[in-house]
Amino acid sequence: MPEQNPDAVLDLQREARIGLTEAVLCEHKCADQIAAILRQLRERATPALLTRLDSEKLARLPHTLRGELDFDDLSRTGFFGGVLRPGRDAAVAIVSGGTSDAPVCREAARTLEFHGVGAVLFQDVGITGLWRLLERIDEIRRFPLVIAVAGMEGALFSVLGGLVGSLVIAVPTSVGYGVSQGGRLSLNAALSSCAPGLLTVNIDNGYGAACAALRFLNTKKIV
Amino acid sequence: MPEQNPDAVLDLQREARIGLTEAVLCEHKCADQIAAILRQLRERATPALLTRLDSEKLARLPHTLRGELDFDDLSRTGFFGGVLRPGRDAAVAIVSGGTSDAPVCREAARTLEFHGVGAVLFQDVGITGLWRLLERIDEIRRFPLVIAVAGMEGALFSVLGGLVGSLVIAVPTSVGYGVSQGGRLSLNAALSSCAPGLLTVNIDNGYGAACAALRFLNTKKIV
Amino acid sequence: MPEQNPDAVLDLQREARIGLTEAVLCEHKCADQIAAILRQLRERATPALLTRLDSEKLARLPHTLRGELDFDDLSRTGFFGGVLRPGRDAAVAIVSGGTSDAPVCREAARTLEFHGVGAVLFQDVGITGLWRLLERIDEIRRFPLVIAVAGMEGALFSVLGGLVGSLVIAVPTSVGYGVSQGGRLSLNAALSSCAPGLLTVNIDNGYGAACAALRFLNTKKIV
Amino acid sequence: MPEQNPDAVLDLQREARIGLTEAVLCEHKCADQIAAILRQLRERATPALLTRLDSEKLARLPHTLRGELDFDDLSRTGFFGGVLRPGRDAAVAIVSGGTSDAPVCREAARTLEFHGVGAVLFQDVGITGLWRLLERIDEIRRFPLVIAVAGMEGALFSVLGGLVGSLVIAVPTSVGYGVSQGGRLSLNAALSSCAPGLLTVNIDNGYGAACAALRFLNTKKIV
Amino acid sequence: MPEQNPDAVLDLQREARIGLTEAVLCEHKCADQIAAILRQLRERATPALLTRLDSEKLARLPHTLRGELDFDDLSRTGFFGGVLRPGRDAAVAIVSGGTSDAPVCREAARTLEFHGVGAVLFQDVGITGLWRLLERIDEIRRFPLVIAVAGMEGALFSVLGGLVGSLVIAVPTSVGYGVSQGGRLSLNAALSSCAPGLLTVNIDNGYGAACAALRFLNTKKIV
Amino acid sequence: MPEQNPDAVLDLQREARIGLTEAVLCEHKCADQIAAILRQLRERATPALLTRLDSEKLARLPHTLRGELDFDDLSRTGFFGGVLRPGRDAAVAIVSGGTSDAPVCREAARTLEFHGVGAVLFQDVGITGLWRLLERIDEIRRFPLVIAVAGMEGALFSVLGGLVGSLVIAVPTSVGYGVSQGGRLSLNAALSSCAPGLLTVNIDNGYGAACAALRFLNTKKIV
Amino acid sequence: MPEQNPDAVLDLQREARIGLTEAVLCEHKCADQIAAILRQLRERATPALLTRLDSEKLARLPHTLRGELDFDDLSRTGFFGGVLRPGRDAAVAIVSGGTSDAPVCREAARTLEFHGVGAVLFQDVGITGLWRLLERIDEIRRFPLVIAVAGMEGALFSVLGGLVGSLVIAVPTSVGYGVSQGGRLSLNAALSSCAPGLLTVNIDNGYGAACAALRFLNTKKIV
Amino acid sequence: MPEQNPDAVLDLQREARIGLTEAVLCEHKCADQIAAILRQLRERATPALLTRLDSEKLARLPHTLRGELDFDDLSRTGFFGGVLRPGRDAAVAIVSGGTSDAPVCREAARTLEFHGVGAVLFQDVGITGLWRLLERIDEIRRFPLVIAVAGMEGALFSVLGGLVGSLVIAVPTSVGYGVSQGGRLSLNAALSSCAPGLLTVNIDNGYGAACAALRFLNTKKIV
Repeated sequence: MPEQNPDAVLDLQREARIGLTEAVLCEHKCADQIAAILRQLRERATPALLTRLDSEKLARLPHTLRGELDFDDLSRTGFFGGVLRPGRDAAVAIVSGGTSDAPVCREAARTLEFHGVGAVLFQDVGITGLWRLLERIDEIRRFPLVIAVAGMEGALFSVLGGLVGSLVIAVPTSVGYGVSQGGRLSLNAALSSCAPGLLTVNIDNGYGAACAALRFLNTKKIV
Repeated sequence: MPEQNPDAVLDLQREARIGLTEAVLCEHKCADQIAAILRQLRERATPALLTRLDSEKLARLPHTLRGELDFDDLSRTGFFGGVLRPGRDAAVAIVSGGTSDAPVCREAARTLEFHGVGAVLFQDVGITGLWRLLERIDEIRRFPLVIAVAGMEGALFSVLGGLVGSLVIAVPTSVGYGVSQGGRLSLNAALSSCAPGLLTVNIDNGYGAACAALRFLNTKKIV
Repeated sequence: MPEQNPDAVLDLQREARIGLTEAVLCEHKCADQIAAILRQLRERATPALLTRLDSEKLARLPHTLRGELDFDDLSRTGFFGGVLRPGRDAAVAIVSGGTSDAPVCREAARTLEFHGVGAVLFQDVGITGLWRLLERIDEIRRFPLVIAVAGMEGALFSVLGGLVGSLVIAVPTSVGYGVSQGGRLSLNAALSSCAPGLLTVNIDNGYGAACAALRFLNTKKIV
Repeated sequence: MPEQNPDAVLDLQREARIGLTEAVLCEHKCADQIAAILRQLRERATPALLTRLDSEKLARLPHTLRGELDFDDLSRTGFFGGVLRPGRDAAVAIVSGGTSDAPVCREAARTLEFHGVGAVLFQDVGITGLWRLLERIDEIRRFPLVIAVAGMEGALFSVLGGLVGSLVIAVPTSVGYGVSQGGRLSLNAALSSCAPGLLTVNIDNGYGAACAALRFLNTKKIV
Repeated sequence: MPEQNPDAVLDLQREARIGLTEAVLCEHKCADQIAAILRQLRERATPALLTRLDSEKLARLPHTLRGELDFDDLSRTGFFGGVLRPGRDAAVAIVSGGTSDAPVCREAARTLEFHGVGAVLFQDVGITGLWRLLERIDEIRRFPLVIAVAGMEGALFSVLGGLVGSLVIAVPTSVGYGVSQGGRLSLNAALSSCAPGLLTVNIDNGYGAACAALRFLNTKKIV
Repeated sequence: MPEQNPDAVLDLQREARIGLTEAVLCEHKCADQIAAILRQLRERATPALLTRLDSEKLARLPHTLRGELDFDDLSRTGFFGGVLRPGRDAAVAIVSGGTSDAPVCREAARTLEFHGVGAVLFQDVGITGLWRLLERIDEIRRFPLVIAVAGMEGALFSVLGGLVGSLVIAVPTSVGYGVSQGGRLSLNAALSSCAPGLLTVNIDNGYGAACAALRFLNTKKIV
Repeated sequence: MPEQNPDAVLDLQREARIGLTEAVLCEHKCADQIAAILRQLRERATPALLTRLDSEKLARLPHTLRGELDFDDLSRTGFFGGVLRPGRDAAVAIVSGGTSDAPVCREAARTLEFHGVGAVLFQDVGITGLWRLLERIDEIRRFPLVIAVAGMEGALFSVLGGLVGSLVIAVPTSVGYGVSQGGRLSLNAALSSCAPGLLTVNIDNGYGAACAALRFLNTKKIV
Repeated sequence: MPEQNPDAVLDLQREARIGLTEAVLCEHKCADQIAAILRQLRERATPALLTRLDSEKLARLPHTLRGELDFDDLSRTGFFGGVLRPGRDAAVAIVSGGTSDAPVCREAARTLEFHGVGAVLFQDVGITGLWRLLERIDEIRRFPLVIAVAGMEGALFSVLGGLVGSLVIAVPTSVGYGVSQGGRLSLNAALSSCAPGLLTVNIDNGYGAACAALRFLNTKKIV
């Protein structure tokens, strides 16, 4: 067997360097690997955000570690050792096309919450019933940063981007079937939108959109 | 060399059978093949619609045949031996996202014109400036059949489909670049639209949308 | 946690606006989300169509809600609170290539039934045994609107489109394996058919084809 | 510079081994490379078939070599130093959907001709006008081997395969646009056909289909 | 509910027309649909071949029908009501790259067996250990028809096609991982082989290759 | 011919609505269409940004219109009727992997310039020679917003995103060949970066990145 | 049933020919097939490496065979009948981006171990926290051969290839989601790297990288 | 306009760091950019290798720079200011499937030549005429490193990898048509080869394979 270091090498300097902590992406890690990382974090008394942790894997974690996790089933996220910073006022709007996009909205909101940032959710304002979006557009416009979450054909991104001047971050979701299965269509709709200056993250990446929002909020102090 | 019949085998019974004449798709035919078909049609005194005839190929056709062609450069269509039926009132709305979609709109309109059907064009009502579409939506709504033409992310299809109850036929165009290059994105947006009951044809297929409109108008007599 | 409104925002004005009610697409919703929507609908005494509801998810719905559902296993559809309108005579032909396409045919028929429209099913007339289709073609031709359902290489669409002058709506299905797995091939066959004026919806989208048929039937009143 | 042998290494034993001679595929070779190969062949007095030789490249060949080439522009094929065997009666039917497929039909016919085998061409029997195929099906059925050539959605393959019991070799062509651009759709239609026992070659590969026909005819002597 | 005919429409004239019987492709049919078809066949005393019938679905068939099925687990095929014709001598060679391809080889062999044709299997002659193929090549060469079965990069097809002059039918399999997952790579290798005149069927389609072999054997009588 | 309005419908209210003016994307428009739009703009005395205007199309514009265009060949952009606002200090860093990415960098810079925003270009800091980036990282870090431009495998995005806490907008370019041809690889690298909170626009979309930067700079006033 | 040889044809001469033994790829083989191969190997007293053997399949192997297997769960590899050669000093560095890549690293290490070659593992040196790689780069540089293992956007390959002059073999992994799902992105990043002279193997192919390393080490004796 | 440094930032330390000099990839650079780079190199008296320089771009370079270029048309490479090191004996075998692959072979050979390494070319040993490869295999086997160059279905890689124990680097080429157009098929064949331990570079990347060979030759000193 190869010589190796059993411990993961955590990037604990990340927050000092770029203002964001390292999250533990659990999807491709087995329960043993996650447990080893959590023990390291506990020794260093560093709170951590876990993402893409499904409930079966959670059940295979040691009981004591599980007890220190504030787990949310819908978003598959966990706060280990509390949050990084206490909450602040809502600075971000999260706008979504339909109830099927709720897990991704929640992942974004939980990531913000862990970093002490609040969010307001505008759910189910898909553009087939355009009045639902128009009814709330003035409220949405007041936020400097809007996270827009949509699957299927992703038409919400273009309509929204044409109506508000805020920084808009599109999060395409894998909600869809047939030619929209998997989220590529919604992703490409965001990238090709006629609305100028839309920005995009990976499919279902509510975490990434929230991190971008944190970069946005952090740089305000610098400017 | 194989034994062969130099003449194309035209489907002259098509109109009697399904109410539509055979068009001559020129894209993959050389000038000699097109000329041979036109001569056959002239002998039978059958007017014909030519599609996807570019101007260089047109220039290589014999002078006498060229003289009998009513050619339109923007749509690359030609009427050979006149139109099939004289014009009627406008029965179809053609709605498009931007001026770049004009060639496809025109192909649809010319196909309708050849069959004696008029159309009204609502151009440049892309949804980034949503007011442009909303301003004209009541006019559009009055048509029982709407042909919607859009490239890029194709968000027009969903917005339109949510606002009018007419039969809506989406024609995705190859207008776009990067991930929307070639028209697949717009096509898939039409197919995956949240607006219920949208129908779609192939990319840049203004001719096909017009044929479907003709089927629609023909069936009225049956109901 | 973000501030949010626990209720879905239903587009109850949709029927007045475009003549179609909003259906509940259950595929990406969890049982709790579906139950919440059904309760809203019950309060408003609005009948609803549910699509893509599999039997396991059905079993997780509260007993009382389940009791108000007329569920069909093959098509995975449910009528909640009855149908929207009582039945009328058959106005639509549904033609399919093989018995494997039955679930999609049934989804289309159930959507029509919910809206009070009847349909006649011509099943198993795939073109490998061409006589099966030719034997029934005169019957099919009498319908102003034909929904054609086929998987694999989708050759049925072209043959049918060349034989009838009605409005033909192709529904590609995901029946197939190897290069036809997933339904893309059948979809593209419909889009590229040599038969002029074929129209297409998303893969396995019997619901969408039926909605287009309803648009068609509704506009007849307008013309 | 690397040490190298300027001459191509011809597989002159191929005919003895598998009954087929090596053809010179000119598409990716420059005129100098083709000329060098032709000179080798002339020294060995070996007749050769050239494929995918466009007319500009032909013009760049030395005059004396060009003089020994029997070139056909439509199929882009050349016979260098005569044919391999004098002609025989027609043993193969070549059936095609439309005139746009003519270059591929001709490549197959020329390959057969070079090897002394005749072919009969049934052109323009695409299935949108089904009567054209049905009118000639009894003639086609008499051939033990049928080469079927079609682009677009390739529905011809399935209809034909359901009507004749001969060995059917499908040659998909790159004729098409939008989703059928490039020939993949027609290829996949051939591979996924409901008609049992269809065989397929690469897109636009008339040469390959003819070689398979030669294998077929050669093995008859063995059985 | 739509009016419909509960029975499948079997193409019982197929054997008279093209020399092949209709097989029952079970993959996308539920047990009820299969049972209904088998009952129809039993009434007509027609033996049938079932393909892609997995063992769970088999277990859900009624006991009496199951009793009349000669089922083979590896190939997922069944003979219902005996075979069509008693066995003959081996006329076909089946050559495969590795033991992982065994299910597809067996599907081809069983299809031939049902139609009364024998086959000899040359297994595990993949070209990484080239001696294994060269050792048996003279035996293989004696068969007028060779079915070659391979997954991964499908190099067997090209080597074999360059060594034998028989008609070679390539059956790509879905054996592979990473970029060869699903069988597309092997399929494309067969289609693009430098060996002239290779023919191909769909991925994992042992049944199709056997049907082509039956067409080949049937046509012998005609020439 | 259809009734139509020859003029394009400009979205002149866009700046008031979202703080950005409509640009004229010239790629899919013919010279006549562009000229018509410019004349409309001149009548309204509205300065405009033109993008993707190649030099041949420029040469086909009427002489008087051409005279009012400040054209830049490398970026294919033009300022018509001057810029929208006079220049300000540099607020944005543009960082690029290699000299081949220069046209896209310039498109971003010109879009900013048109809107009165300056930029500093850090060119040729690709990560194969990592010292080039590390040498300038402290300078880059001082900008609240960084536009990162890279083709090929796009590794620059991840390295940069791990080193700076600013808002980073990745612009993938179509520079590459083989598997990186067209820019998809670089795009996907940006979307999948391990560096948290990276944002992305369409391939070669320097214009879009600049528009996002303008949204960012505009929103500062709100927070 | 076809006549066949029940035994697999092992390529036992492979080591003499190319210095590598044949491994048993278990992924597409059933337990019966694997057992048959192991029995053959036991008769010949040949030790063997098994790859992609999951634990359920292992459990279905006969007890006696299982007892002779040194199985490793993480890498899904087994040594049957011991290793081929006793261990030597570490000659290869295995460098990986994150803990999720551990199974592929281990497959490479186990393959080397079976052939008597040691390896040192540098885990978790992904480039988002660049200091982790820079801290260990001098150690890594001392190895003539480096196996680099990474999923997601695969930026590690380019950074590493620009820092060390050793032969670098990239092993892309299927770790990722959204656009990086399945490993294609990481593979293409390795193939398109700006760092000159990177070499690549198939996705998740730790076994292949180790075999290449063995070829490398074997040729040292030759040079 | 943005502030920028007109000079490219050359990585002149690269040779000291990893033993390879930076080459100038000309494909996406305009003549002005190339000229600027060459002038920088001349000032530093650094010889350089130029790749993918087509003859039209060459013609647009200033006359004096052109005079210092040793240009090779077939491989589109240039040596500027002489070679880096004088020639050594041949240490690498370059094996190719056909004459169409000659440009890529030459690019590899020229890259080696620039760095003072010789190569022997084994051209036209494609495996359809297997005797051509077998005839020369003992010669090839004597080289510790083999660069294998092939397009189409890339079967050469697997056959060669099964016959020699040297380090084999596959260079897939874009030679092919239909499903092998562009080189993806050949690339995937190399990646998925059954022959263990094959290594691959990007499509048409003769330069990259040569750089890997240089890494290989450089590391000999370390072991």
